[in-house]
Amino acid sequence: MSKAMPAVHELQESLAGPRAVINGGAPMRLESGAMLGPVTVAYQTWGELNAERSNVVLVCHALTGDQYAVGTHPITGKPGWWESMIGPGKSIDTDRFFVICPNCLGGCMGTTGPAATNPETGEPYGTSFPVITIRDMVQAQAMLLDTLGIDKVMCVIGGSMGAMQVLDWAACFPERVVSAVAIAGAARHSAQNIAFHEVGRQAIMADPDWCNGFYFREGKRPESGLSVARMAAHITYLSEPALWRKFGRALQDRYTKSYGFDADFQVESYLRYQGASFVQRFDANAYLYITRAMDYFDLEADYQGELANAFRGARTRFLLLSFTSDWLFPTSESKEVVRAMNRAAANVSFVEVESDKGHDAFLLDEPDMFATVGGFVDSVAREQEAGR
Amino acid sequence: MSKAMPAVHELQESLAGPRAVINGGAPMRLESGAMLGPVTVAYQTWGELNAERSNVVLVCHALTGDQYAVGTHPITGKPGWWESMIGPGKSIDTDRFFVICPNCLGGCMGTTGPAATNPETGEPYGTSFPVITIRDMVQAQAMLLDTLGIDKVMCVIGGSMGAMQVLDWAACFPERVVSAVAIAGAARHSAQNIAFHEVGRQAIMADPDWCNGFYFREGKRPESGLSVARMAAHITYLSEPALWRKFGRALQDRYTKSYGFDADFQVESYLRYQGASFVQRFDANAYLYITRAMDYFDLEADYQGELANAFRGARTRFLLLSFTSDWLFPTSESKEVVRAMNRAAANVSFVEVESDKGHDAFLLDEPDMFATVGGFVDSVAREQEAGR
Repeated sequence: MSKAMPAVHELQESLAGPRAVINGGAPMRLESGAMLGPVTVAYQTWGELNAERSNVVLVCHALTGDQYAVGTHPITGKPGWWESMIGPGKSIDTDRFFVICPNCLGGCMGTTGPAATNPETGEPYGTSFPVITIRDMVQAQAMLLDTLGIDKVMCVIGGSMGAMQVLDWAACFPERVVSAVAIAGAARHSAQNIAFHEVGRQAIMADPDWCNGFYFREGKRPESGLSVARMAAHITYLSEPALWRKFGRALQDRYTKSYGFDADFQVESYLRYQGASFVQRFDANAYLYITRAMDYFDLEADYQGELANAFRGARTRFLLLSFTSDWLFPTSESKEVVRAMNRAAANVSFVEVESDKGHDAFLLDEPDMFATVGGFVDSVAREQEAGR
Repeated sequence: MSKAMPAVHELQESLAGPRAVINGGAPMRLESGAMLGPVTVAYQTWGELNAERSNVVLVCHALTGDQYAVGTHPITGKPGWWESMIGPGKSIDTDRFFVICPNCLGGCMGTTGPAATNPETGEPYGTSFPVITIRDMVQAQAMLLDTLGIDKVMCVIGGSMGAMQVLDWAACFPERVVSAVAIAGAARHSAQNIAFHEVGRQAIMADPDWCNGFYFREGKRPESGLSVARMAAHITYLSEPALWRKFGRALQDRYTKSYGFDADFQVESYLRYQGASFVQRFDANAYLYITRAMDYFDLEADYQGELANAFRGARTRFLLLSFTSDWLFPTSESKEVVRAMNRAAANVSFVEVESDKGHDAFLLDEPDMFATVGGFVDSVAREQEAGR
């Protein structure tokens, strides 16, 4: 796409799909104490809500995901990010379940975030947007369900940052969550992950076109900085074996080294493409705010240093999945959550899926993941007699 | 240090220590075919050369290292980067050996590189400097030894990029290398490592102050870009356990989250400090050229796809070391080299050192490393009767 296309904040209002003003239009109180509102949440749904409203599957997206889990993405034109998981006859079967995926608070696809218009000023919030947390995202989702008249979810599911939201959902609203599936997640963001996020933020904020977050006023976008941030992050989503298998040291469109700084290696041009395409669909400030929310996530600290307290007394059924080659959210992080759930006498299953695809495996074709999630969701539905 | 301090290229001529014009002042032919010269190599020495000139230890530094392995660094005022390894009575014993450490070709501490003055123009080379390779660095070192009248080295030793040079030394000059110690290295740069380097380069080149590499003309320095590059790279030098032990999720100078984008977490302010201090001592173009040289390194490809051919017939004694928590140059990479040496019937020892300090372990206090290297170097010296 050319640079002449509208900036993400200009696209927001025109994006397809339903949106709801939550909390009756009143401002919501954020975890920081700041008030934000009115808050709009954009979302997508698939399947039909049954008469008992007992077949709801809530899907929480990851850092750079959005509500377009299924169907053609309105900006990129690509298929939804979880089409392999959600659809007729799939693990999350839209013939049986009513699936809803909201764009997270702070996002840039129609939900209130730094790229949305601040009603008080008539221009995008930019960095006047308050810092938000995973809990704020979860509260906004809960208010969306209130608005839609949905009391309980049969299953809340998500990977990566989505898994953080899943865990927080179970902690905040145990009575509203029948089952919860947290894939490739953690109960807190590790020091290394905070470090990688900080590199990305510094890359964005070092870009003169960032303009302290008010780039829209100057008709600019910090594309270089956001692109570097995406490139650095993208490496962490993969694994060395996957990179090696995919690219090795193969050269791009040439037979010998150029002895220059062009993208000699395929892995270089792949990364540059990842950076360049990302900036067309994502808002730089949203990247700052959402990474910050992930860094702040620490469910153990929220429960006085005993993670088990987050899950005590819950009747929620849990499923946790991790991937052997995921070094961003390694199996050890999931196991810590499982151990805490065990201490809380919660009902938890845990599966480590063998995969060499790294963290991104949760978005990819992983038959073990599909079978495990499908079996779990089906058994919950049967227990609840929740299918259509 | 303040921004008012001289740029690295302005400091070059004033740096303490000997320097030599190599190859009799004639240009050297680079691996790319380009001619470069006259080439100056800045170096440091410790200990005394014996009468037989048989007690030389050549130290090859890593990407952001320099010749100041021992003694106060002239810019940072900090101790040398390998004082723990080199000194009287240490593993590389300066009471017995003559230790020489040259600044690598392409570096920015007095050896000819992009920050050096191009005699044809009277201004720094900038990006008119030709792309160099690890082999070019090794050739320049060999020419330095020629200039100094040194025919053989009792030991060539280095970590990380230094280990790449060590392997290339043994491959290019088997008759000049009695023993070779390659620590935390590899025979080729992996796809993941190329990817991380590419992120760093893109961060530098995205900085408007880079000015296509001619920043000195504008009185500018791409400090933001170089700082981001350093931050991203620095994470890869550590390990998640080391980061966790050092910082965890501890907050910096505060008790609660700031709900802002300041460095809330200690790991963030540590990284920012790493970036900010690095730009005071390193030239951005040098970073581009040296990372490129590492990316291009592929000893297997240089020997028709059979790494063993690089070491066939060599009488060099080899020692390879790796660290259990090093994910940048993991043990598997060292083992590949060991297997190739075995196929070549070379004399090789290999030790994997237990450490949770990541790649940087080769610069840190690792008693197993000191004991292994010390014992190896001592036995080589005894065999050669090379100590003073």
